[in-house]
Amino acid sequence: MKHILAVNFKAYPTAFGAKALKIARNSDAVAKEFQGSVEVVLLPPATELREILSTVSYAKVYAQHADPVEVGAYTGFIPPEILKDVGVEGIMINHSEHRMKLDDIEFLISKSKFLGLKTLVCGATPASVAAIASMNPYMVAVEPPELIGTGIPVSKAKPEVISNTVDRVRKVNSDVIILTGAGITSGEDARKAIELGTQGVLVASAVMKSADPGKKMYELANALAI
Amino acid sequence: MKHILAVNFKAYPTAFGAKALKIARNSDAVAKEFQGSVEVVLLPPATELREILSTVSYAKVYAQHADPVEVGAYTGFIPPEILKDVGVEGIMINHSEHRMKLDDIEFLISKSKFLGLKTLVCGATPASVAAIASMNPYMVAVEPPELIGTGIPVSKAKPEVISNTVDRVRKVNSDVIILTGAGITSGEDARKAIELGTQGVLVASAVMKSADPGKKMYELANALAI
Amino acid sequence: MKHILAVNFKAYPTAFGAKALKIARNSDAVAKEFQGSVEVVLLPPATELREILSTVSYAKVYAQHADPVEVGAYTGFIPPEILKDVGVEGIMINHSEHRMKLDDIEFLISKSKFLGLKTLVCGATPASVAAIASMNPYMVAVEPPELIGTGIPVSKAKPEVISNTVDRVRKVNSDVIILTGAGITSGEDARKAIELGTQGVLVASAVMKSADPGKKMYELANALAI
Amino acid sequence: MKHILAVNFKAYPTAFGAKALKIARNSDAVAKEFQGSVEVVLLPPATELREILSTVSYAKVYAQHADPVEVGAYTGFIPPEILKDVGVEGIMINHSEHRMKLDDIEFLISKSKFLGLKTLVCGATPASVAAIASMNPYMVAVEPPELIGTGIPVSKAKPEVISNTVDRVRKVNSDVIILTGAGITSGEDARKAIELGTQGVLVASAVMKSADPGKKMYELANALAI
Repeated sequence: MKHILAVNFKAYPTAFGAKALKIARNSDAVAKEFQGSVEVVLLPPATELREILSTVSYAKVYAQHADPVEVGAYTGFIPPEILKDVGVEGIMINHSEHRMKLDDIEFLISKSKFLGLKTLVCGATPASVAAIASMNPYMVAVEPPELIGTGIPVSKAKPEVISNTVDRVRKVNSDVIILTGAGITSGEDARKAIELGTQGVLVASAVMKSADPGKKMYELANALAI
Repeated sequence: MKHILAVNFKAYPTAFGAKALKIARNSDAVAKEFQGSVEVVLLPPATELREILSTVSYAKVYAQHADPVEVGAYTGFIPPEILKDVGVEGIMINHSEHRMKLDDIEFLISKSKFLGLKTLVCGATPASVAAIASMNPYMVAVEPPELIGTGIPVSKAKPEVISNTVDRVRKVNSDVIILTGAGITSGEDARKAIELGTQGVLVASAVMKSADPGKKMYELANALAI
Repeated sequence: MKHILAVNFKAYPTAFGAKALKIARNSDAVAKEFQGSVEVVLLPPATELREILSTVSYAKVYAQHADPVEVGAYTGFIPPEILKDVGVEGIMINHSEHRMKLDDIEFLISKSKFLGLKTLVCGATPASVAAIASMNPYMVAVEPPELIGTGIPVSKAKPEVISNTVDRVRKVNSDVIILTGAGITSGEDARKAIELGTQGVLVASAVMKSADPGKKMYELANALAI
Repeated sequence: MKHILAVNFKAYPTAFGAKALKIARNSDAVAKEFQGSVEVVLLPPATELREILSTVSYAKVYAQHADPVEVGAYTGFIPPEILKDVGVEGIMINHSEHRMKLDDIEFLISKSKFLGLKTLVCGATPASVAAIASMNPYMVAVEPPELIGTGIPVSKAKPEVISNTVDRVRKVNSDVIILTGAGITSGEDARKAIELGTQGVLVASAVMKSADPGKKMYELANALAI
């Protein structure tokens, strides 16, 4: 199986317009180079999805979020059906900056499966990530509060948080892809995430705030190409 | 193990003041009569907890909800610590009328365990109830959307919704008490809930809107005393 | 001043992809024909904004919603700055299907003004629309609960709900454009909205669910061209 | 008119149980002493309301929050009708720690008026407090973000934030009582709040975290007794 390198654009200044397209193109070049061993997943804001999808050929594109509604009279909400039409490969939900109700997570996992969309569901603690995994998403991302936004690399923070989560997830789900979703800023961190039993990483500022996002993507992909 | 008869007072006109105290007293008499075989759990609004606790001797009292906050600067929220001080036996969370974020459910289950409070966590679908059960609450209640508020007794609705949920829950948790949480209006329904593999019932309008709540409590307890 | 014909695409089956582009093109033709007297405003989902903006020349495009966040680490949220970059003329907020906190409404009105974006803010009652108007948005839309989704035309429902709202709004704000935002399905309704003292209409299903959306747009624009 | 000394108990460790009762008794003694010139308002958590109401004779008791629901099938929510039955004088809503939707604020102001409950509605900015005032609550509290939780006394922070808010409120509402709702920790601050054109103060930690809450209440009431 390929390792995953997922990049959350968030709403950073580089997440939209020309800067976002450039990061997408550079990431696509990295995706092409490592196509045999690493899957690059880009997560731009909803407004940028169609343009970025028409720009990349090797990288996959996921939405950063989907709303737990059906097609119909829902103003200012994006149901999975619209994202399917847009052409994304999948959706991310329940990011630490956008936590959702348990019911809505379950609805979106089921609905996405029905529509042929993949799901990447984030969670904070071993117990909550295992609960998510029991609902059979395509991927989960472990975001230990110990690591989020601290800049502490997972290799130096308590790594047992990650391995404990992997253990609990595997008790309820042997297939789900597990990403390390916080504290990854370097190739060394990415490699450590793999050693701890996860199958990839979910990064954001490391790439989006980098002086050279393409170079940072190369560093991370290269570390995951093992 | 005793079967559970849990009564959600909601914010019904009978849920507060003198009417609520009367229902509590009548329920306590039923709790006394069936103390060997049925555990009666009363769930009044937060404002009524202290008075009802000082009124009953045999029935257990749970809060209808707790907020996922710590003790501190949280205006208009009730953390579990306050409920512990009030003297409740436990808390209910994630009722279909008050769905919560997955993270908050996990926080409240952990925090309650730490404080010595029991948890009753509601859920809608087999997948979401199993996800909840994987986080080790004390009780779960299955509220199939097919049954909520329809007045259709579980014995006549598709009973496999309940038994499927029981099956999925037992795969991840062998101990959690499972309640049937929708569509129970009669002793016959309560008995059917037990036959389907659950250990009790969570009722609301059947008692709170009854012309004779004490009589309805007796009917339900009597059916569960098996 | 031109009258306003605003079309909320919501998340209807016609709100995205090829169907949405066709409605946008047809609406643009209507906008061209009535450019001296009617301003056509289109409100597509966030994912469709860039394509529709590059499709129309006469119609204005607003976002259906914006999130009350800054540019930065906000996953799955769209701050006004992104919408400014996308090129919309303005944003709608607080639609009856997407009610917001008072604070967030105030933040978005201020932020939009700073960015040079117009705001269309919806409200339900005379009191709440007047409260909104006191915060100086560009437009408000009156959505009386008596009219929403009932299919009852404003000309036959209690028209004093609209005129009372106009009176209360004008006491605190003499400039804001007022739209009638519910119960408009025909040219006759649109004309009635103008007679009641509002400066335009906000429609949704009348156009989006029409067998011939372009023809319906023409009918409404023609009625407003007075 | 009497000046107002309102004490938000929040969910502080002193906000419930014996400690809360003691603060209530001490505050009641202060309320008695200054009954000709200062109105003391206590805002305990929902669980403590009945006991505190039966403890005090001179102080008024408000709820810290009410939920925008009717009496009925609403689990874990407290409608104003329950609070009316409990016996409170009024409700506070939209505190900076519990912001609400504009619609819900409007609903609760109207409903409270209908039930004979007073309303104290908080707001952050001159524009949002004026919008609130336009909906005719009984009191508003100005909580400038510049002052909340900073410990900076209003007398030393930019006092024009308060006076600007008073100006804007008075343009839409000549009657509403205005409280200064952040940054008050001393009698000097309380007096400054009056000088700036407000009719009282809303405090929390100054009393609830005080080594001697009764003494702090006396200091504040004494400063307001002018």
